[in-house]
Amino acid sequence: MQEVINEILKFRDDRDWKQFHTPHNLATSIVLEAGELLENFQWNDDYDLQNVKEELADIMTYCLLFTDILNLDYKEIILNKVKKNELKYPVEKCKSSSKKYTELGA
Amino acid sequence: MQEVINEILKFRDDRDWKQFHTPHNLATSIVLEAGELLENFQWNDDYDLQNVKEELADIMTYCLLFTDILNLDYKEIILNKVKKNELKYPVEKCKSSSKKYTELGA
Amino acid sequence: MQEVINEILKFRDDRDWKQFHTPHNLATSIVLEAGELLENFQWNDDYDLQNVKEELADIMTYCLLFTDILNLDYKEIILNKVKKNELKYPVEKCKSSSKKYTELGA
Amino acid sequence: MQEVINEILKFRDDRDWKQFHTPHNLATSIVLEAGELLENFQWNDDYDLQNVKEELADIMTYCLLFTDILNLDYKEIILNKVKKNELKYPVEKCKSSSKKYTELGA
Repeated sequence: MQEVINEILKFRDDRDWKQFHTPHNLATSIVLEAGELLENFQWNDDYDLQNVKEELADIMTYCLLFTDILNLDYKEIILNKVKKNELKYPVEKCKSSSKKYTELGA
Repeated sequence: MQEVINEILKFRDDRDWKQFHTPHNLATSIVLEAGELLENFQWNDDYDLQNVKEELADIMTYCLLFTDILNLDYKEIILNKVKKNELKYPVEKCKSSSKKYTELGA
Repeated sequence: MQEVINEILKFRDDRDWKQFHTPHNLATSIVLEAGELLENFQWNDDYDLQNVKEELADIMTYCLLFTDILNLDYKEIILNKVKKNELKYPVEKCKSSSKKYTELGA
Repeated sequence: MQEVINEILKFRDDRDWKQFHTPHNLATSIVLEAGELLENFQWNDDYDLQNVKEELADIMTYCLLFTDILNLDYKEIILNKVKKNELKYPVEKCKSSSKKYTELGA
């Protein structure tokens, strides 16, 4: 993964684009790329696989750029969130159910 | 990174949730989590760092779950997109400019 | 406004497109058009006024198509929400503040 | 409709909130409310009608606030876009088809 991150940062720095990467701008960019991914499913599920790959890559790239500017460790924040979700969605209550945790009995 | 992916897949499979993870549903989920991240910047830039970390983690987690169901290699799709962007945004034309490539002279 | 709604419904029905207008598809379409509006502000605030007008029109059009398929009265749902917001955001607590109601003292 | 717009503007002005209503902030707010609407359809189509009404109302309200700050006429921009779409999606090519116009033969 570090190799991937290095390539992304090199791409950014070769263009001197870090100056545009505020947390606000990057959050906006993630939303816009996520919309482009979802556009594949707007009217039916005949998605374009090549486009799906590219949009997913764009979203992950902006996420990694976001972790860079705030000096976050992507592994740590993901693993911490998984732990939090394990408490929020206990296996015995959630198994095979798509109900949101707010709808699950106390 | 493989350790992180294994934790995410274990969380999903312990709950038997893969059945809900169609490409369409995951694309929708990425959009919704991206919106929650952006909400930190709706009226001003006083974001909540803990919330930012958690929303970023949610987005990356759904992206990794997406690559899993389509059997995609996250490294490969990101590196391929970086290569494509290098052709689309040549350094000599883009340096220090936030103009979109469509606005750059031919 | 009824004239506007009639034009929108005629456009839809001339193309026999109501069949694609499920609540889910229309909600997705609103998100995507909203993303296209926001794209005007991704890196700076030099928005394209003509594009802003068209994206706003698309969003309002999909909202009106949504009210049509669920047989909702746009006036009623907006006025009801304004009333609800008046209770949620009392003038004396909110005046000149962009703080969210959740952050306002009890 | 003018009555509805008057109520919305009164709500805003009673709280002195116009100062926060830049085009950028309102575009962001529309995206976020659109996400809340779409959340009703994230995992299945068992949407909450009351919530759908309120989110639709929020989106339309922000659109009307947007037209106010830019001094746009909502009727004019919608009718102009319908006219443009009539040229973009000719009845004889689009009838009963959900294909995007870009996929339609020339």
